[in-house]
Amino acid sequence: MFSKRLEFVEESGIRKMFNQVGELKDVIDLTLGQPDFKINDEIKAEACRAILNEKNRYTATNGILGLREMLYEKKKQEGWTIDLENLFVTSGTSGAIFLSFNTLLEQGDEVIITEPYYNEYKNLTYLCDAKPVFVNIYPEFTLTADKIKDKITSKTKLIVLNSPANPTGKIINKEEIIKIVELSKKHNIYVIVDLIYKDFLYIDKEIFPTEITEDYSNLIIIEGFSKTFSMTGWRLGYVVTNKNVIQQFTKIQQYTFLCAPSPFQYAGIKALEIGVNPNMSQEYMEKKNIVMELLSPYFQITDPEGAFYCFPKMPIGSASEFAKFCATDGGIMIVPGTAFSQYDTNFRLSFATDNINLINGCKRLIRKITAFQK
Amino acid sequence: MFSKRLEFVEESGIRKMFNQVGELKDVIDLTLGQPDFKINDEIKAEACRAILNEKNRYTATNGILGLREMLYEKKKQEGWTIDLENLFVTSGTSGAIFLSFNTLLEQGDEVIITEPYYNEYKNLTYLCDAKPVFVNIYPEFTLTADKIKDKITSKTKLIVLNSPANPTGKIINKEEIIKIVELSKKHNIYVIVDLIYKDFLYIDKEIFPTEITEDYSNLIIIEGFSKTFSMTGWRLGYVVTNKNVIQQFTKIQQYTFLCAPSPFQYAGIKALEIGVNPNMSQEYMEKKNIVMELLSPYFQITDPEGAFYCFPKMPIGSASEFAKFCATDGGIMIVPGTAFSQYDTNFRLSFATDNINLINGCKRLIRKITAFQK
Repeated sequence: MFSKRLEFVEESGIRKMFNQVGELKDVIDLTLGQPDFKINDEIKAEACRAILNEKNRYTATNGILGLREMLYEKKKQEGWTIDLENLFVTSGTSGAIFLSFNTLLEQGDEVIITEPYYNEYKNLTYLCDAKPVFVNIYPEFTLTADKIKDKITSKTKLIVLNSPANPTGKIINKEEIIKIVELSKKHNIYVIVDLIYKDFLYIDKEIFPTEITEDYSNLIIIEGFSKTFSMTGWRLGYVVTNKNVIQQFTKIQQYTFLCAPSPFQYAGIKALEIGVNPNMSQEYMEKKNIVMELLSPYFQITDPEGAFYCFPKMPIGSASEFAKFCATDGGIMIVPGTAFSQYDTNFRLSFATDNINLINGCKRLIRKITAFQK
Repeated sequence: MFSKRLEFVEESGIRKMFNQVGELKDVIDLTLGQPDFKINDEIKAEACRAILNEKNRYTATNGILGLREMLYEKKKQEGWTIDLENLFVTSGTSGAIFLSFNTLLEQGDEVIITEPYYNEYKNLTYLCDAKPVFVNIYPEFTLTADKIKDKITSKTKLIVLNSPANPTGKIINKEEIIKIVELSKKHNIYVIVDLIYKDFLYIDKEIFPTEITEDYSNLIIIEGFSKTFSMTGWRLGYVVTNKNVIQQFTKIQQYTFLCAPSPFQYAGIKALEIGVNPNMSQEYMEKKNIVMELLSPYFQITDPEGAFYCFPKMPIGSASEFAKFCATDGGIMIVPGTAFSQYDTNFRLSFATDNINLINGCKRLIRKITAFQK
């Protein structure tokens, strides 16, 4: 009765764990894909001001001009080549990914996705009747243009890059991004660069090659407010791409999202004015260091360079069995690697929680893995 | 390069007019699909309270429990047969329609839509690779089960009902809805009943047959907050349907909308507590009467029974030519029937504006049609 496409679309393993958390007692939740800090008070005040000032109606499909202008200025400062018409405001980065996939994909198309992946990439590919093609980057999680090259066929329509990456925290080398974009251009393939975690950085290097913005012809760059400003429930993101793609986005958005929530678009301007909390990466680096210090004796973990996840490897046994073993009263919630991969060897741990919770969580995890191995 | 589906998806004729309005001087805008009144202060205060109280993170995919419980209670009071598990909170009714179409449709399927239609129905059908089949209800705009019956084929997957209807304001007779649902059940076809305008009513009769809720097996009922509470930019709606459909909605929402904007879900509870403004239909009936009284001598207009649109017929000439003729500085904006139909005979006028504006708008329209006919 239902569309056959949906048989391939799975319930999110991350959300499944998230929905279970409420049912358990005294459980430490390390599944969360959202920062633990509160939204800056000035941004919240601005959202309330917009609501009280009647900014509650539909906006233009591509977002309010004020927000687009602010984004334009910011990108210029960051060295991007950009016109106001290259910008499109979306309902979160998920909204942006959905619009992109829906614009580009049709039955028979292939989408190249690194594995482990953020499961939305895979499932939206299926939802668009296309086929995901995985580039296995276990165990080092290093993506190179050469690895991508091997997977390109005449059916490849899109390559998805996520840097820093969910669930590994790895960054794709700038030079490799340039190579991938060049390679794709030759093959008439689009590249999505999903930068949602770009403001959580633990290494001191530029991660985005601004020179690629000189030509948007096969490029869709996605950024969001959700993680950077801790407003995941406000559904606000944006895209920078060429005008032909934006024309298609406009059509699709008119019949789906209509527009990003109006008051939060105004609050988004304030968020950009205030800018990223300069202490955020330092604070999150401490969290990352806590995890690495406590868990490294027990698990093999690639040191995250960004985002707020790590992806420890099980010393032995199945990660999904272990996640189940951990998910009990007085336990700990993690997401097994099967939510990001065909491999059941690793699990994702989010360190976006307060340090005491994180330390206790890691200690519980150590007790659990010790018991699990017996 | 782009998905072939998109070639059939048109830019919304309504939004096109909406986007033009800002560019003209002293223009009276009668294109608006949103009420003219402000959101109730208590509801706005509740939204701000939610923001300040940190209700800014992802919610459960199907919406916060408090809102679903409140909706459940309300529907029970209205005589619906319903479980809490029949409810799903969406990002506006457009979000609900998108989820429904995406769940049900695949290539080759047919969707029965009344013509004139709300253009989202047609365009989302194309976006899902399916084919719209139109039931022409010109010139009286009365939909019956018999008219639907003629269009059913082995490929029909879905019938979409909108009552009160955009753009005509017509209500589908309760008994006809029952017949259509029964007929569809026999043919294994789903029925969407889109009730977004149900709180704008100008006739004294029940419009929804609650008895059909005894069996949700082929039923998707869609309602929204946007129009009733004037919060179009808040993106909040909901669906009542069977649990199998909701399971599919959950999967799709996880990769697209994620959840309706969190603070507005809390404000939605307050909106339901306060209930529909008891004067609203009376105030809108006055607006409707203004239009009917002023314009009836010049246009043939079916008296709207609900919603806040009327759909006058051109005495002569093309409606899209007339709309262009009206859209000048010091003019008036209306939406030509081609945005709702293959026929260029009528235009949509929204009376969701203050009475003075509306009177002036109608007067301008009379001047314009007089000049246009010369």
